Amino acid sequence: MEIDQQYRALTVDTLSQRVGGVEAVASRVGGEPASWEIREVGDGNLNLVFIVSGSHGSVVVKQALPYVRMVGESWPLPIYRAHFEYYALIRQAKRAPGIAPEVYHFDKPQALIVMEYLHPHTILRRKLINGERVVRLGEIIGQFCARTAFRGSELSLSSPEKKQDVGLFSGNVAIPAITESLVFTDPYYGAEMNHHTPELSPVVDELRRNARLKAKVQRLLMKFTANTETMLHGDLHSGSIMATDTDVRVIDPEFSQYGPMAFDLGMAVANFLMAYFSQPAHRQEGELEAYQAWILEVIEACFSSFDAEFRYLWQTERTGILFPKALFEEQGNSADDACDALLEEIRLDALAYCGIEMHRRCCRWPTTPTLKRSTTLGCAPSLKRAMR
Amino acid sequence: MEIDQQYRALTVDTLSQRVGGVEAVASRVGGEPASWEIREVGDGNLNLVFIVSGSHGSVVVKQALPYVRMVGESWPLPIYRAHFEYYALIRQAKRAPGIAPEVYHFDKPQALIVMEYLHPHTILRRKLINGERVVRLGEIIGQFCARTAFRGSELSLSSPEKKQDVGLFSGNVAIPAITESLVFTDPYYGAEMNHHTPELSPVVDELRRNARLKAKVQRLLMKFTANTETMLHGDLHSGSIMATDTDVRVIDPEFSQYGPMAFDLGMAVANFLMAYFSQPAHRQEGELEAYQAWILEVIEACFSSFDAEFRYLWQTERTGILFPKALFEEQGNSADDACDALLEEIRLDALAYCGIEMHRRCCRWPTTPTLKRSTTLGCAPSLKRAMR
Repeated sequence: MEIDQQYRALTVDTLSQRVGGVEAVASRVGGEPASWEIREVGDGNLNLVFIVSGSHGSVVVKQALPYVRMVGESWPLPIYRAHFEYYALIRQAKRAPGIAPEVYHFDKPQALIVMEYLHPHTILRRKLINGERVVRLGEIIGQFCARTAFRGSELSLSSPEKKQDVGLFSGNVAIPAITESLVFTDPYYGAEMNHHTPELSPVVDELRRNARLKAKVQRLLMKFTANTETMLHGDLHSGSIMATDTDVRVIDPEFSQYGPMAFDLGMAVANFLMAYFSQPAHRQEGELEAYQAWILEVIEACFSSFDAEFRYLWQTERTGILFPKALFEEQGNSADDACDALLEEIRLDALAYCGIEMHRRCCRWPTTPTLKRSTTLGCAPSLKRAMR
Repeated sequence: MEIDQQYRALTVDTLSQRVGGVEAVASRVGGEPASWEIREVGDGNLNLVFIVSGSHGSVVVKQALPYVRMVGESWPLPIYRAHFEYYALIRQAKRAPGIAPEVYHFDKPQALIVMEYLHPHTILRRKLINGERVVRLGEIIGQFCARTAFRGSELSLSSPEKKQDVGLFSGNVAIPAITESLVFTDPYYGAEMNHHTPELSPVVDELRRNARLKAKVQRLLMKFTANTETMLHGDLHSGSIMATDTDVRVIDPEFSQYGPMAFDLGMAVANFLMAYFSQPAHRQEGELEAYQAWILEVIEACFSSFDAEFRYLWQTERTGILFPKALFEEQGNSADDACDALLEEIRLDALAYCGIEMHRRCCRWPTTPTLKRSTTLGCAPSLKRAMR
């Protein structure tokens, strides 16, 4: 793994000096860099995350470390993952405006992104544990998935633009490889880092004995690795979503890759379903049923909003090489049935990815989840790793 | 389109001077370069093709031109297609040894490949028109498709190796784009360069009215553009196959890209089927039926040999990340059913690609095919273009 010679990990003491000269940062934070308040909030496993505050406002500074922080330099992980996080963030901003944190500055050799400080947002996983509701949560996640799925595909992009992007993202090798083994393969045999609660052993054994199921899962892995339909978030669980009671944002796309349209939707729904099933551990009866009913509404809204937004874009923005209007509308044929058929395929694959993610969360759990800070963007990476 | 400043098109007069110093070439041709016999045989639409002969033997020198030769500089076509032809040739040599022409020398800035001179091979299309049989034709084509499909996929390759290759081939934009429009879209509406014989008008009109069919075709285009399962030849018709009575070789992979496993098989079978249907124009009754029966045997052999070889590699070389033995054999589960299910999917998609290619050959035929020279490798590109 090559690291740029210039690369130096930031510290609370060096940050203002090293980033203070960047106009896009200085103008947003305000005041003298030497007077900035700087907190390192990445208690996390992978990255350094700083919240930098001044007289005007705050920004988040995120820098990739060349190894897994909680393990140490013995577990290297390429810092180029920050490049792909940046590429994904700016594409999401274009394809689904207003959902990803805004990027103010990107320093490639330093693997460093300066971005919007989301406040007073908290990680959605914490809200689901606390029993808090978020207005339009399912609608916004479904819409985000549909917009990124449609606008990142050749339904919208030109063939050269899409191929160039697939080429770019094919450089992100190390991170998708984690998903490939961790989600699709490890849970289905006695992989080294597996862990499950003893009570689940009969279920886990049954999964691992079921050759037909394992074959289906591997067929979906084949789609995940090879089917570059659109740019995915790649890790869209409730630890990658931040929210207030009325605002929903999606963070941390460092697992981004081109992959199947159904993947993000399926992962999101899996995490909502797991929140549903875990509610009895968090809530009293009475309160429990109402909150679980709300989670089911979120899931329904996810699917229906995905479909509605995808259909809308199909009608209004189908300018790519796929299903061109010259073959349908311009010959007096509706393309609605083709859209419905594609949506049906996406829904079935999303449910399959959903099931696989739920298997994984039961069988492949390296550490007991510990919920530490959950009030800032900074906690997200650590939270996400802890929940893995 | 950028062309390297150094690029200069070869001529019969400059070739020996420019290529004579290359040891890999000089040692195979033999004698003084000044005394080499050099024939330009690319009567063709796209490339310069020379046969260079000396005291030891002959080689083929193929150089891409930066425009479509038969049209002129007004129709530019990037010379980087020669790079992808080279990348494909060396991968085919590794994955399916003995079928592609051996590469002796590659000069990237000159978009120039020096390769094996196939002799006394002729283009298979000519043989099919002449009513000549080729021993084991279907077996060898099916086996070639299976070997390249399996060994170019993550059934065999590691995840990083595959992603790197997908990234590399994503640079081949201009050439796959030809297939995308020419094969999958143009035939199904009144595209500018379409042409069909007037007698076919009712059939063509019916194709273009059939919204369900067009939707299926576009779904297969979506797989073709996005589903990077394996490295394809990309243009495997009977003009890309050279043969003697007993030897079969596959040439001209400049349309190579990563795509669906079923594509090459489907294209090959389409071209055999079209040869079948065109036989009444070439042969007397009596002779006709026997030769058509032989073509059907070739098609059956194509499919059965693809299946047999793919199953064999599945058992013996499944070392990639997909369907790993840890999930099947090592847990006492057979993975045979998974292989059969994948082969069934490949067969169905191959038949779909086969049908699409047959539609295209009826509706999208820019010029009347003219069969000129058909005795050398050099004629292949022109033949192929003429048949488009």
